[in-house]
Amino acid sequence: MTYERPPTPGYDLGMSSSPIRKEVDGALLAFVARQRPNLLAISDELAPLMAALDALLAEGKRLRPAFCYWGWRAAGAVEEDLDGPPGERLHEGIVNAAASLELLQASALIHDDVMDSSDTRRGQPSMHRRFEALHRAQGWPGPARAFGEGTAILLGDLCLAWSGEMFETCGLDEERRRRGRAVYDLMRTEVMCGQYLDMLEGTRGEAAVDTALRVVEFKSAKYTIERPLHLGAALAGGAPEVSAALTGYGVPLGIAFQLRDDVLGVFGDPAETGKPAGDDLREGKRTVLVALTLERATPAQAAALQRRLGDPGLDRPGVDELRQIITDTGGLAACEAMIARYTGDAERVLAAAPVPEEARAALNALAVAATARRT
Amino acid sequence: MTYERPPTPGYDLGMSSSPIRKEVDGALLAFVARQRPNLLAISDELAPLMAALDALLAEGKRLRPAFCYWGWRAAGAVEEDLDGPPGERLHEGIVNAAASLELLQASALIHDDVMDSSDTRRGQPSMHRRFEALHRAQGWPGPARAFGEGTAILLGDLCLAWSGEMFETCGLDEERRRRGRAVYDLMRTEVMCGQYLDMLEGTRGEAAVDTALRVVEFKSAKYTIERPLHLGAALAGGAPEVSAALTGYGVPLGIAFQLRDDVLGVFGDPAETGKPAGDDLREGKRTVLVALTLERATPAQAAALQRRLGDPGLDRPGVDELRQIITDTGGLAACEAMIARYTGDAERVLAAAPVPEEARAALNALAVAATARRT
Repeated sequence: MTYERPPTPGYDLGMSSSPIRKEVDGALLAFVARQRPNLLAISDELAPLMAALDALLAEGKRLRPAFCYWGWRAAGAVEEDLDGPPGERLHEGIVNAAASLELLQASALIHDDVMDSSDTRRGQPSMHRRFEALHRAQGWPGPARAFGEGTAILLGDLCLAWSGEMFETCGLDEERRRRGRAVYDLMRTEVMCGQYLDMLEGTRGEAAVDTALRVVEFKSAKYTIERPLHLGAALAGGAPEVSAALTGYGVPLGIAFQLRDDVLGVFGDPAETGKPAGDDLREGKRTVLVALTLERATPAQAAALQRRLGDPGLDRPGVDELRQIITDTGGLAACEAMIARYTGDAERVLAAAPVPEEARAALNALAVAATARRT
Repeated sequence: MTYERPPTPGYDLGMSSSPIRKEVDGALLAFVARQRPNLLAISDELAPLMAALDALLAEGKRLRPAFCYWGWRAAGAVEEDLDGPPGERLHEGIVNAAASLELLQASALIHDDVMDSSDTRRGQPSMHRRFEALHRAQGWPGPARAFGEGTAILLGDLCLAWSGEMFETCGLDEERRRRGRAVYDLMRTEVMCGQYLDMLEGTRGEAAVDTALRVVEFKSAKYTIERPLHLGAALAGGAPEVSAALTGYGVPLGIAFQLRDDVLGVFGDPAETGKPAGDDLREGKRTVLVALTLERATPAQAAALQRRLGDPGLDRPGVDELRQIITDTGGLAACEAMIARYTGDAERVLAAAPVPEEARAALNALAVAATARRT
């Protein structure tokens, strides 16, 4: 197994030659296939829900499952465990447990898009827009928007319930799951609270670097990287010093990952990100990138940025104007410097971490892929 | 233990002299108390979330926990199990598992109120209105309504995640939970799908008795009564014939329960229901009661009902006019007859069910309380 930088940075996240990504895809497909007859037994009018979930789950970087799997390996679980002891299918179990994080993420994305009124997700219409469009196409008499949002809330709930179901029925024994559950529970609480703090700062119009970083820590760094690593390590029964090292690697890397996201949200190529150019600007996200820019802006630059940030009608020339400000002030350069610094911190901790060499190599490749990606 | 009709029908649901209600309250309080420091460690700005949950969870009929507990007893678990075998606290376990259903219900209520744009819940402002009001009181610059709705979506997610956490950490052993989990998982899927079908029929403006009854089956009857009974029975390790009898009792009783809800949503006393008079009419709910009325209405009565149903500005004289139509057509009488018939069906099955006498008496009292209630 090699971990060369993949040809399309970010997409394969170092897993291009690994079977894990395909196995996670297969586990998700199998789980949803088991649910399908339950839903259709209730009513065949639920078919559009299944189709919408299929479309959403077909996409995605499988980032959290990858970190979960490599947390498992970092804690000492080896490929030889593939068959496991009698009655326990260890490899299948960790793949299912890791894949359940994609359902949790699907729930978060669907609900986030409702909260942010986002039109697109993974290059497709967001869930609430999809069902709003179905409503219009059917010519139903009630309000289309409320129907779209209501359906998205329910589908997000379904994905959240299913993520727990998939984790608990992953096939690993209760002792492993009991340890993993403690991480899973904490992670869910953290990401929901982090999301609230994010929304709170957005609505207050605050944009200080330190408060934005606190949101990044709970909403992104812990949720995307540290806790998936901890989950895998806990399922494997890893020692406390492994978890501590995974925190030292995962939290700074998670911050760097989110800062890359901030940059892509402003400067990303729509053909690669699947989102319109400058979408974060239109949504008015109070990112660390924005905070770094405002710290460095002249009063005129700050006023121009504050005026257009969150303007739903922001067009391409408007996006270009704000990009110029973010570049000219040095906000972009400061953000790139932070990404490099946090990534470096993560790599240094990883270099000294008490983990098997294969896991170290994989986590190094993931660090590059997570912070140098273009989507 | 006696099961007299409680002085305020519906509130105590036959549990007025039972310790179970208090134990469920205590279990919820203890669970939330364990979460509180986790949240406040993230940020003290999360305190309003905790306060809002405390207020919501302090109210409620504890109906689903009661059915879960009596499903457990119906399947043969006895009070002598209170101490249980070494290492397993059976009584504490079933109380926690039963109480976890209140968190699931809190999640459903919070999200339903967003979807229905309801202003009140349990005599208080609904969750999204509560945070909309906080936003206004603080004078934050962003949109108050979006903040309220976003917070309610997140809080509902948190309650949903916590319900699973509380169930899995209830204290019952893995073998019991494995059996219970199958019910729990199915119940969550059913209620979310039932809610979608309900919304679908509402937005289509459909109001046929048979389709409305299908929604009632999945959204209410199974979720409120049958599955909580099954959950308790599965945790106890009950025989298949007990579960079958609980279905024969639970589904018709659950339908009767929901039909009582339909009647209360139109004719209920705001001082008792905690909701404005005729709230279901204002929200335009396509209930069985409405369907029964339309079946019996003259063209003029049907037109008047259809015209005002779902009018957010429906005032007290408007409510009175619609109440008159629902009464005059015989819709109300037909609905009351259905309630009596379904309750009778449930009671007949219960009379012959292979369950201990104490459970039979309790379930009989619950049947009366659930269908003769005024709140």
